[in-house]
Amino acid sequence: MPVSLAIQANLDLLKNLNFDMYNNDFLLTWEKSDEEIKAVALLAECFKEMHRTGLSCKTFESGLAISIFRDKSTRTRFSFASAANALGLGLSDLDEEKSQVAHGETVRETANMISFLAEVIGIRDDMFLGEGNKYMREVSAAIQEGYEKGVLPQRTCLVNLQCDIDHPTQTLSDMLQMKRHFGSFEKLQGKKIALTWGYSPSYGKPLSVPQGIMGLMTRFGMHVALAYPKGYDLIPEVAEVAKKNAARYHGKFEIVDSMEAAFQDADVVYPKSWAPYHVMQKRTDLLKKGDKDGLKVLEKECLANNAIYQNWECDEAKMKRTKQGNALYMHPLPADISGVNCTKGEVAKDVFEKYRIETYCQAGFKPFVIAAMIFLSRVKDPIRKLDAMLKAEQKRII
Amino acid sequence: MPVSLAIQANLDLLKNLNFDMYNNDFLLTWEKSDEEIKAVALLAECFKEMHRTGLSCKTFESGLAISIFRDKSTRTRFSFASAANALGLGLSDLDEEKSQVAHGETVRETANMISFLAEVIGIRDDMFLGEGNKYMREVSAAIQEGYEKGVLPQRTCLVNLQCDIDHPTQTLSDMLQMKRHFGSFEKLQGKKIALTWGYSPSYGKPLSVPQGIMGLMTRFGMHVALAYPKGYDLIPEVAEVAKKNAARYHGKFEIVDSMEAAFQDADVVYPKSWAPYHVMQKRTDLLKKGDKDGLKVLEKECLANNAIYQNWECDEAKMKRTKQGNALYMHPLPADISGVNCTKGEVAKDVFEKYRIETYCQAGFKPFVIAAMIFLSRVKDPIRKLDAMLKAEQKRII
Amino acid sequence: MPVSLAIQANLDLLKNLNFDMYNNDFLLTWEKSDEEIKAVALLAECFKEMHRTGLSCKTFESGLAISIFRDKSTRTRFSFASAANALGLGLSDLDEEKSQVAHGETVRETANMISFLAEVIGIRDDMFLGEGNKYMREVSAAIQEGYEKGVLPQRTCLVNLQCDIDHPTQTLSDMLQMKRHFGSFEKLQGKKIALTWGYSPSYGKPLSVPQGIMGLMTRFGMHVALAYPKGYDLIPEVAEVAKKNAARYHGKFEIVDSMEAAFQDADVVYPKSWAPYHVMQKRTDLLKKGDKDGLKVLEKECLANNAIYQNWECDEAKMKRTKQGNALYMHPLPADISGVNCTKGEVAKDVFEKYRIETYCQAGFKPFVIAAMIFLSRVKDPIRKLDAMLKAEQKRII
Repeated sequence: MPVSLAIQANLDLLKNLNFDMYNNDFLLTWEKSDEEIKAVALLAECFKEMHRTGLSCKTFESGLAISIFRDKSTRTRFSFASAANALGLGLSDLDEEKSQVAHGETVRETANMISFLAEVIGIRDDMFLGEGNKYMREVSAAIQEGYEKGVLPQRTCLVNLQCDIDHPTQTLSDMLQMKRHFGSFEKLQGKKIALTWGYSPSYGKPLSVPQGIMGLMTRFGMHVALAYPKGYDLIPEVAEVAKKNAARYHGKFEIVDSMEAAFQDADVVYPKSWAPYHVMQKRTDLLKKGDKDGLKVLEKECLANNAIYQNWECDEAKMKRTKQGNALYMHPLPADISGVNCTKGEVAKDVFEKYRIETYCQAGFKPFVIAAMIFLSRVKDPIRKLDAMLKAEQKRII
Repeated sequence: MPVSLAIQANLDLLKNLNFDMYNNDFLLTWEKSDEEIKAVALLAECFKEMHRTGLSCKTFESGLAISIFRDKSTRTRFSFASAANALGLGLSDLDEEKSQVAHGETVRETANMISFLAEVIGIRDDMFLGEGNKYMREVSAAIQEGYEKGVLPQRTCLVNLQCDIDHPTQTLSDMLQMKRHFGSFEKLQGKKIALTWGYSPSYGKPLSVPQGIMGLMTRFGMHVALAYPKGYDLIPEVAEVAKKNAARYHGKFEIVDSMEAAFQDADVVYPKSWAPYHVMQKRTDLLKKGDKDGLKVLEKECLANNAIYQNWECDEAKMKRTKQGNALYMHPLPADISGVNCTKGEVAKDVFEKYRIETYCQAGFKPFVIAAMIFLSRVKDPIRKLDAMLKAEQKRII
Repeated sequence: MPVSLAIQANLDLLKNLNFDMYNNDFLLTWEKSDEEIKAVALLAECFKEMHRTGLSCKTFESGLAISIFRDKSTRTRFSFASAANALGLGLSDLDEEKSQVAHGETVRETANMISFLAEVIGIRDDMFLGEGNKYMREVSAAIQEGYEKGVLPQRTCLVNLQCDIDHPTQTLSDMLQMKRHFGSFEKLQGKKIALTWGYSPSYGKPLSVPQGIMGLMTRFGMHVALAYPKGYDLIPEVAEVAKKNAARYHGKFEIVDSMEAAFQDADVVYPKSWAPYHVMQKRTDLLKKGDKDGLKVLEKECLANNAIYQNWECDEAKMKRTKQGNALYMHPLPADISGVNCTKGEVAKDVFEKYRIETYCQAGFKPFVIAAMIFLSRVKDPIRKLDAMLKAEQKRII
């Protein structure tokens, strides 16, 4: 059986890219070159297509994939488990005491103790502003030292499964969903995405998805229209990244003050709740102090403030403002759907239902994005290896 | 090495059966044809024999087996883990909030989110009357939609690991234990099984095992004598299934009012505690309302009522009434054994000890029954595949 | 590619050893012959080197490795997970109610129920004096019976992952670290190891590491100088083992009353906190009774008593007393490091930092020690099998 045309096309593109991610972590998309980003994306599509057509993506005869979740997770947990399984890695979860943010020798030692046979560590740590990404870098430094000093026989790689700054496995999946919708990387150029806050009856949702989207999609020349109610700022550093990208890639990055303005002629809408930057900072301080009363007061204030903006709902009327009233609706799931799992939420029931299957498909890229990140970090000559895998044509069902 | 005679015999029988379980779930035995039931049983015996003789049953190069346990479980958990492992699947457990019975979009979405690389989902949900099986069908419908609309590349199959109505992986194992004891499917015809309530100092035990046994064994022409104290009814629908089967398969289904009557001339005895149908309904209502006081009152009432029937114990005297005093004792384990793990329970110490190893063997079929269900649901041409596996003679120890 | 010289050398040594560990458990090192101990050690080194050079150690096409942790664990948990993964086994954890020490039919039954497809059960049970090892033997007897009576198709083997008496996977790793440091088994002869208590601001730490070290290292003709404050005795039986070994293997076993005396001219120092034997006995009684107040009182007393011996810290001054001031510092991790994770602890910050990477390397043997134990217990002709694996040269990355 010849390799499918879709896979062959991606393989040809991959061969012309200049990238080297061997022994590197994947922490923030803006630390990666354009060709590295594209390599992950194209390889993810290859793996997805291989899986769909019944081919095995097994790369490792043995080896561990370790997950560290410092926040509850179902979807990301299964995406990571799926990626590990597809590549042939065994999954082990490090179940730390949830409340404890360890640093120093404890992190350094634990990172080495779990990694003797580990190919990858996936970390989700998005609850504390200024902590998650920092923790990942601490683990990474410990692994690097262990590798250099002969403790670890391989350079276990890190994959950011969501931190306080970025959520690269999500945003690369989102990008692939848009690429599928519009047809190619090139066709993303100039498309408008309305990246907006949405009302939710909960608080404390992380900022990493909108930050990640504006940091990544501006690189494809998209017009990112960010909208949020007064006070719901994101962390300033990422806005700087988005501005620079907009200039460099001939896209546009603007902040507008209403959902309506952002939706106007948009090709894509991405309405999602998040907590204000300054609230997350306050919350981080209170959590560190273990100030339960303070946290309750903060939550009450926030929910009251959220409630002012209940009209920030993605409804039919607002969707009509988009390009031909037909923009692609996106959400990382689970969404707060008005009249479904809450009285009033981020999106109206009929809008969500129309795009429900699309949001599932959007999520369907994630296992393969993670698999691609692991593969490119752990396989020295990835193109040759992929070529060999495709020639071997090992079936998933033996 | 030629294939063992036992395996060859089963393979020949399988080749003459007419069944197609590809892409189907396994939820209730009475939804399956006789030939489908026999196919699962024969294949389970093949896998068991392959494992025993050191042959690998590995079928999948990669893929996930997902377990959802809405009730505590050790035995079924390990049976499912073992089945997944034998076939080459990686295990991932979805750990929901235990008390929460989610429905609607949450179930629909989660079912898809966890299934991108899943071959099978095994669900145990036996705590709420009218809920467990319903939940499984909700998950199944979501998977089916996801498969049809291109979200999922494969039709992940569902295996019922115990619901409020049936416990097919248990009852098929039980059937194989009886087949082993009597020698063949055909020899089950006309044999009498005493399916009786047994006293236990606990309450709230599920109804699915006795229901499953009477729904399944009447199809093999067995004489099922069901006995329970006044008020300990099972759900009425399954009694209807058993009655129809008895007529069709020339067996017998009767309800008698004492353990002694049921045991009279029985070839098999299956004494086991369960909660009365109407109590389980009341309990379900109270659990849904979160009425803790009401639950305590109900438990007290039930235990008091149970205590009236302490003589419903499988002891030597009652065993003497069975065919030549030598009936096969069965239990899904763990049993409440008088003087061992409780003062007074379902079975006397000496009776249990005599059959202890037999009950372990009875349980030993379950991993292979589950493996057979998965295989028949996920492999398009199972006979050809099994043939190829047997020819390849891959050893478990490489 | 020819087999590396290190592996070839070990293989040659292994071929000249007389051992048969097939179908045997690994519970206490002093139940094993010298050649069996050496076989585990040499094979562990082979596996470690195979892994380092990118060769797969996969031995099993399928099969389960089951872990039972009756105490919190990260390091040992990951070592066991890593060993299982390296050999190709799937991992399943039996999560018992933590507080419950079950015996009798419950243990007997559960042991069989989880073992139908299990190659190994690893158990950690070190909290209760007189319980852990006893529990392991109870599980072992149940498995043996199940195997003999045809319940289990294979003799699932047990590996002691730490009990109240010994910690063989740790001490064999420690021995390999010393072998690496000094160059050979033979060079351990006559070397002095200071095996001392160390101050810790916690109490209730197990006795199994010092006991295991004195039971094992006296067999290599080492001079074991055990030192602890008055009252911090270990269990007497192991001291007897150590005395006999010292006589037989021309080593030395002495108990001295200060860290300084033990450190004098030592080649290796192993300072580690443990709870006094009589305290652990009292604690076991209180835990069994569930006497929470009694436990609090005991803890308070113990910590007060510990505090008297804060000078039992491995600091630079004491290290200067060792052979050329340059002894190898060892610790099973995590260590209580003064000024790092506690105000005052087992070891001074600068001493620990100097040997930090060495302690990581010491831990790095453990996954392969466990893998070797499993391999020797489950593979009938281990030398021939290892030979075949080395010839096949299967890469870890396929």
